[in-house]
Amino acid sequence: MELLEQRIIRDATVIGDDILKVDMFLNHQIDVDLLNDMGKEFYRLFGDMGITKILTIEASGIGIACIAAQYFSVPVVFAKKGNHKNVGSNVYTSEVFSFTKGVSYTITVSQDYINPEDNILVIDDFLANGKAIMGLKDIIDQAGASLAGVGIAIEKGFQPGGKMIRDNGIKVESLAIVDSMKDGKVKFRR
Amino acid sequence: MELLEQRIIRDATVIGDDILKVDMFLNHQIDVDLLNDMGKEFYRLFGDMGITKILTIEASGIGIACIAAQYFSVPVVFAKKGNHKNVGSNVYTSEVFSFTKGVSYTITVSQDYINPEDNILVIDDFLANGKAIMGLKDIIDQAGASLAGVGIAIEKGFQPGGKMIRDNGIKVESLAIVDSMKDGKVKFRR
Repeated sequence: MELLEQRIIRDATVIGDDILKVDMFLNHQIDVDLLNDMGKEFYRLFGDMGITKILTIEASGIGIACIAAQYFSVPVVFAKKGNHKNVGSNVYTSEVFSFTKGVSYTITVSQDYINPEDNILVIDDFLANGKAIMGLKDIIDQAGASLAGVGIAIEKGFQPGGKMIRDNGIKVESLAIVDSMKDGKVKFRR
Repeated sequence: MELLEQRIIRDATVIGDDILKVDMFLNHQIDVDLLNDMGKEFYRLFGDMGITKILTIEASGIGIACIAAQYFSVPVVFAKKGNHKNVGSNVYTSEVFSFTKGVSYTITVSQDYINPEDNILVIDDFLANGKAIMGLKDIIDQAGASLAGVGIAIEKGFQPGGKMIRDNGIKVESLAIVDSMKDGKVKFRR
């Protein structure tokens, strides 16, 4: 998606060889106009698949998912990190290993909000090692629901998540795929 | 706001005398149509105040803030909970005591995203003891920005936060104010 790539070139900061800081427009300050353009693009890519629900993970995915959900006219469910007392005991959980933080965390979704009839679009801001996405897939599987596809804002194409998930037969559409960030220069996949 | 009150009556669950569970439509599963109606109402209440930015706090505030921001045509900034390495050292922080969890946590906003010129609308899902809102106000004060007002989805009118913040001279607009939840029956302020 040209607009997102241009925005990354203009405003993102590369730290080292593998951190892409996009907190000026995507995951700390949020440009809602850009999110709308992204939502339209997700709808173009997944709009004919009979999506019944969008599933994401707190916190950075929520804004992207909510704006996109307007185009699909479906509710959003966000997985909570950690074991939440307020959610109750009637939950699906999965363990997700975070390479960034070097620890595992639990993600939790109430069983009330995913049903076997659901055909789910997973949306998230980043795809790197794919552990969060596989955790969400695990929860969808536990619920007996269908995973229609995965919509990602920025995929780090030089990390293994995208290939792994596609090799599982899952449709993944990333609005920008970064193939390298050597010497602070972002190179996109064509 | 009639529509939100009706939705609380229909779908919320009262637990004990002080927990109002709205995770079916507001803070776990999210009804984006309802969020749009709420966003329009926030715009009716604050639209003439020259808002330049909406500030909220992860995670439940993000969806409400992003949908509302479409009406104001301004960016959203969300405060992160905890000390985030990725945000950098150039941050404003404040301590917030959570009565629900019985512990304090740090909220963090990058100094890059709040400026002295900003006139900020704070949006959050709940107002109870008001500690999170006062933490956001503290950060706005540190930045030398202006707090135009506070927009809340659901205020627990029987807890002290709303009065405390209004007594500070701050404009607070809550779309539903719950005055009591005795015996599982929600009573709204008129």
